[in-house]
Amino acid sequence: MGALHVGHLSLVELARKRADLVWVSIFVNPTQFNDNSDFEGYPRDLEADLEICRNRGVDLVYAPEVEDLYPVGDQTRVGVGDLAEPLCGASRPGHFEGVATVVARLLLAAKPHVAIFGEKDFQQLAVIRRMASDLGIDVEILGGAIVREPDGLALSSRNARLGPIARKQAVALVDALDAAERAVANGERARDALLAEVRRHLETATQATLDYAELRDPDTLEPVPPALDGPALLALAVEFEPDPDGAGKPVRLIDNRVLLPAQP
Amino acid sequence: MGALHVGHLSLVELARKRADLVWVSIFVNPTQFNDNSDFEGYPRDLEADLEICRNRGVDLVYAPEVEDLYPVGDQTRVGVGDLAEPLCGASRPGHFEGVATVVARLLLAAKPHVAIFGEKDFQQLAVIRRMASDLGIDVEILGGAIVREPDGLALSSRNARLGPIARKQAVALVDALDAAERAVANGERARDALLAEVRRHLETATQATLDYAELRDPDTLEPVPPALDGPALLALAVEFEPDPDGAGKPVRLIDNRVLLPAQP
Repeated sequence: MGALHVGHLSLVELARKRADLVWVSIFVNPTQFNDNSDFEGYPRDLEADLEICRNRGVDLVYAPEVEDLYPVGDQTRVGVGDLAEPLCGASRPGHFEGVATVVARLLLAAKPHVAIFGEKDFQQLAVIRRMASDLGIDVEILGGAIVREPDGLALSSRNARLGPIARKQAVALVDALDAAERAVANGERARDALLAEVRRHLETATQATLDYAELRDPDTLEPVPPALDGPALLALAVEFEPDPDGAGKPVRLIDNRVLLPAQP
Repeated sequence: MGALHVGHLSLVELARKRADLVWVSIFVNPTQFNDNSDFEGYPRDLEADLEICRNRGVDLVYAPEVEDLYPVGDQTRVGVGDLAEPLCGASRPGHFEGVATVVARLLLAAKPHVAIFGEKDFQQLAVIRRMASDLGIDVEILGGAIVREPDGLALSSRNARLGPIARKQAVALVDALDAAERAVANGERARDALLAEVRRHLETATQATLDYAELRDPDTLEPVPPALDGPALLALAVEFEPDPDGAGKPVRLIDNRVLLPAQP
């Protein structure tokens, strides 16, 4: 969706390792926004994005108009069932239907051999994998690892909207992920104990409200059993209060990590 | 869906005129059936279908297994909004989502340049056109004209299940279409007068119950205005009572014609 940052550019680097030609799509997709003012207000700077892509040796930028992907009279939507329901799907009804719909169209229009999506949007990646595989679209879907600031905060164009106190507190997300990973490494398998530890860290961000902190199956996104018996996605979302000196809108941050209990 | 008859073979002939290689897909699609016993009971005779295709010089028959088109854990569905709501969509909830879902997968698997569907299933054709255009699938969708028995009854594998009286009465559908076409040719433009004329003919089929008789925009399937101002789809569906000597299930028949009022 443009507003490119170093996180996006890491996907370009990964693409370069896998393909002779690297294309970037830039498209602010109206069908994945819950409300139209969010869509209208989404940051757009195509010239700056093009300059960044040029400097990184991107071979082609595909920046369609809305009417190119949504023809007049358009009615078709791609839904992905249960994968779209939990986590971010619960707070953003219709969001993942919009994502699956636009990515299906982008893949069918651009026909890449490999398509790369960031792992920060883990649920989005799961939805896209499922959609492409179910429909039989001839593409390999790859995830790109989360890129972090020096203090661990996952890169996001939203980080710039955090006030100075919130910016410091935002490190609570990665602290919570690290703590859970350490606990699992030390043998902890109890879901509720892990989530309690996670919440203890998130509560240090006093300017933030918890949206969700959940452990789910990384493939199906179904809840994990009370005692972890395999890889588990730890997914977090918090919302920071508006910066009193800032633009005045709350800032929603997400982060995640797949926890890998050693096999007994 | 197999159970090939002369109507299907007319599509093969049309394909031959448009393509060097003619493929036929044969797949009884579980997701377009409202109930599982209909799916289980749907007539299947792949050997007979293959023999027919061989005799007609079909180059390849694509007959996937259910698991080929619906992989384990499948969740993805393709919906087409308002086009799926009226007419057959009203009596068969979910049917056209199943149709759009399977045809998207068939098109993406077989990658034809041209795909041909019978005009008897007019709404299905409209749904498929919309879906392929909206998703940007690289295919030309063509309709094949309805093929009829000598007395005018549209070909359908269901016709064989009509008892002798119902079989005679079934001609009421094409009589109603012919009457409406004549009325339009004679200058009638009033929607309600046309539909009254249609119903008079359908009522001669005393063993049948009317499901719908409607005039709708051929592209959007929206209702036409009280006075016809352009092409109008006349779409009919009736259900014949079970043949007392037959298999004991009601037989649903559909037929349609696009009425073309001369421009003033």
